[in-house]
Amino acid sequence: MPVNLPPPTAQSLKPVAGLDMAAVAAGIRKSGRDDLVLMRLCPGAMVDAVFTQNRFCAAPVQVARAHLAAGVGVRGLVINTGNANAGTGLTGLQHAKRMAQAAAQALGVAPEQVLPFSTGVILEPLPIERIEAALPSAVPALHADAWLAAARGIMTTDTQPKGYSQQLELQGQVVTVTGIAKGSGMIRPNMATMLGYLATDAAVAPEMMQGLAQRLADASFNRVSVDGDTSTNDSMVVMATGQAQVTVSTWQSPDGQALWRALLSVAQQLAQALVRDGEGATKFITIHVEGAQHSAEALQVAYAVAHSPLVKTAFFASDPNLGRILAAVGYAGVDDLDVSRVEVFLDDVHVATAGGRHPAYREADGVRVMQQSDITVRLVLGRGVVSETVWTCDLSHDYVSINADYRS
Amino acid sequence: MPVNLPPPTAQSLKPVAGLDMAAVAAGIRKSGRDDLVLMRLCPGAMVDAVFTQNRFCAAPVQVARAHLAAGVGVRGLVINTGNANAGTGLTGLQHAKRMAQAAAQALGVAPEQVLPFSTGVILEPLPIERIEAALPSAVPALHADAWLAAARGIMTTDTQPKGYSQQLELQGQVVTVTGIAKGSGMIRPNMATMLGYLATDAAVAPEMMQGLAQRLADASFNRVSVDGDTSTNDSMVVMATGQAQVTVSTWQSPDGQALWRALLSVAQQLAQALVRDGEGATKFITIHVEGAQHSAEALQVAYAVAHSPLVKTAFFASDPNLGRILAAVGYAGVDDLDVSRVEVFLDDVHVATAGGRHPAYREADGVRVMQQSDITVRLVLGRGVVSETVWTCDLSHDYVSINADYRS
Repeated sequence: MPVNLPPPTAQSLKPVAGLDMAAVAAGIRKSGRDDLVLMRLCPGAMVDAVFTQNRFCAAPVQVARAHLAAGVGVRGLVINTGNANAGTGLTGLQHAKRMAQAAAQALGVAPEQVLPFSTGVILEPLPIERIEAALPSAVPALHADAWLAAARGIMTTDTQPKGYSQQLELQGQVVTVTGIAKGSGMIRPNMATMLGYLATDAAVAPEMMQGLAQRLADASFNRVSVDGDTSTNDSMVVMATGQAQVTVSTWQSPDGQALWRALLSVAQQLAQALVRDGEGATKFITIHVEGAQHSAEALQVAYAVAHSPLVKTAFFASDPNLGRILAAVGYAGVDDLDVSRVEVFLDDVHVATAGGRHPAYREADGVRVMQQSDITVRLVLGRGVVSETVWTCDLSHDYVSINADYRS
Repeated sequence: MPVNLPPPTAQSLKPVAGLDMAAVAAGIRKSGRDDLVLMRLCPGAMVDAVFTQNRFCAAPVQVARAHLAAGVGVRGLVINTGNANAGTGLTGLQHAKRMAQAAAQALGVAPEQVLPFSTGVILEPLPIERIEAALPSAVPALHADAWLAAARGIMTTDTQPKGYSQQLELQGQVVTVTGIAKGSGMIRPNMATMLGYLATDAAVAPEMMQGLAQRLADASFNRVSVDGDTSTNDSMVVMATGQAQVTVSTWQSPDGQALWRALLSVAQQLAQALVRDGEGATKFITIHVEGAQHSAEALQVAYAVAHSPLVKTAFFASDPNLGRILAAVGYAGVDDLDVSRVEVFLDDVHVATAGGRHPAYREADGVRVMQQSDITVRLVLGRGVVSETVWTCDLSHDYVSINADYRS
């Protein structure tokens, strides 16, 4: 049961003109579910992406990165679940290329114009023939209104699909931003493949696309994941089809800022949805660090708390065992941290001051907050003016069950 | 149930002449158990220690460090369980000093000659009066043959006491090394207080004692724990009473080497015992990294694998989901790692070669090894000649239960 996460509906996910998609059942790992998604982009669409930094980066990531870098225009995406095609060596690379080629053939474009993505079990050979066999059947089903089916078709251990839309008016036209994502292993950044696909129908200048995916990910998906500490397949793609007859030429312009806010909002909602559907999650926890000297140390402290299994099990137990939070702050690696300046709040409850228990703190207040399903931990370092936020979930029995049983 | 860990007996723990100890019940957190240990060292005993690097280092750690640095000779140690006296501010510091003072009074030595230690819940005030009240009753019970009682008296979530002895002949005399330790939260280095106390009756030259605790810890307790990433109270003490009429003057001498090997053996057995009794552990896992360029990168890879909750749940499930191991190697942070040179072995089974599944690998062989309670993961990086070993355990349902229920 995800934490306070209403599922998207076919109506809540708005089509983005110029982007059609379809989900079909290829029988990759389990039969009877859609496990293959094809996306078709209109000519002239702009695409940017950011990929995992894992040294064992999966074969499809290598191929997608190369195809994107080729600069011949992206016209299609093909995504399978059930098998990550990672740790599969040269054969895996050939399979990823065949997957792009089969999708290209189905769409009538060049192989280099297709980006392939895979998620699922790693170190097992991709059943490429099933993908090749199923892809042609996806073409007649391609439709702009199939976001929900696509969100379902990329799920692995997710308990529900994840998608958001936002619409805004620019230059008298309605502009749409829609995104979907998958991933639910969020207890640590290395837990599960995260795939995210965002699209807008605005026309965005080519120079604006450069680095856009990285900037969006840094403020959304990377706030539930340490930089560089990612799975073999993590990828996020952002697409601008230009079909809305609205052209945005700089991010600094009012239109640019409005579009950026809409993209960021969708990306952040998706990132938070991954945590809310975190494997076994029963609580959604926001870690907010204030008073840092710079962003890096704020994130260092936030992640130390967010990753501590002791802190996470205390949240699961609704136990205000706040010493565990202090201990995590202490080992976060801020060498000259003056613990006598550290303040800790649980929502509105002032828990620790000057490095010790706050005199007015009562256990009952801590318990009240810990019993909520949404909790904010606010840590004030007393070193500077920078703040940062990351999102995490608790560590429960179900987390162990899900990951112990994943392959069986 | 600890993994293949026969408990020590009163007979297996040999007395060390010059060191007496006693455990009494002070009612610190729970009544009816020994929770306070007093140790009395003979005059002239040499002591070295290594302490947590956590910025929130507990009050007793601050006092013990200062007393040791004072250089007036250590004559006593006092250790309580049930409360860590950490995150307790100035009051906590006063309590730690009172604890040393009360022990000093009971032993008839100066307060600066006593090192205090605490373990247990943090951020709660230490019931110092109960400790002060109970200490005098420990004095008549002091005895060289009370190692097992002391090992029991320092336990927190440990399911059994931990202690080892080793005897060797030096200069025609029998020399004894005995050590005890507590700690069982080993899934991550930040999990639980580790306390370790080692003693020998050999006389060791003062210059040999400098840094001895650090060198021993680096090759034992720090192999189940990342440097600097420790709890608020972690401490390891090594004592040489000099009562055996055997003087060792350099570590390079044959006698010095033999004594070092005995100390290291006891320290490593204790460190491994912490893992075997790891909270909820059902498997003991040795991670051995070979072919690294230097020790730091070997440990970086070993810890990435050892800390991965995905790897640990796979071990719990006896599931040879070896892709999770490869993924952890990939995100360990060795930037120029050539994954096509990485080899992975599960005990004698060659699982992965050249970054992918070994052609001869059969799932049944992987399952056979994964079902064992002791498993070695051997990772060959193909970069150099350095190897390193760390020890870890699996992540089970019981881990969550233990840590969710710890305070209740």
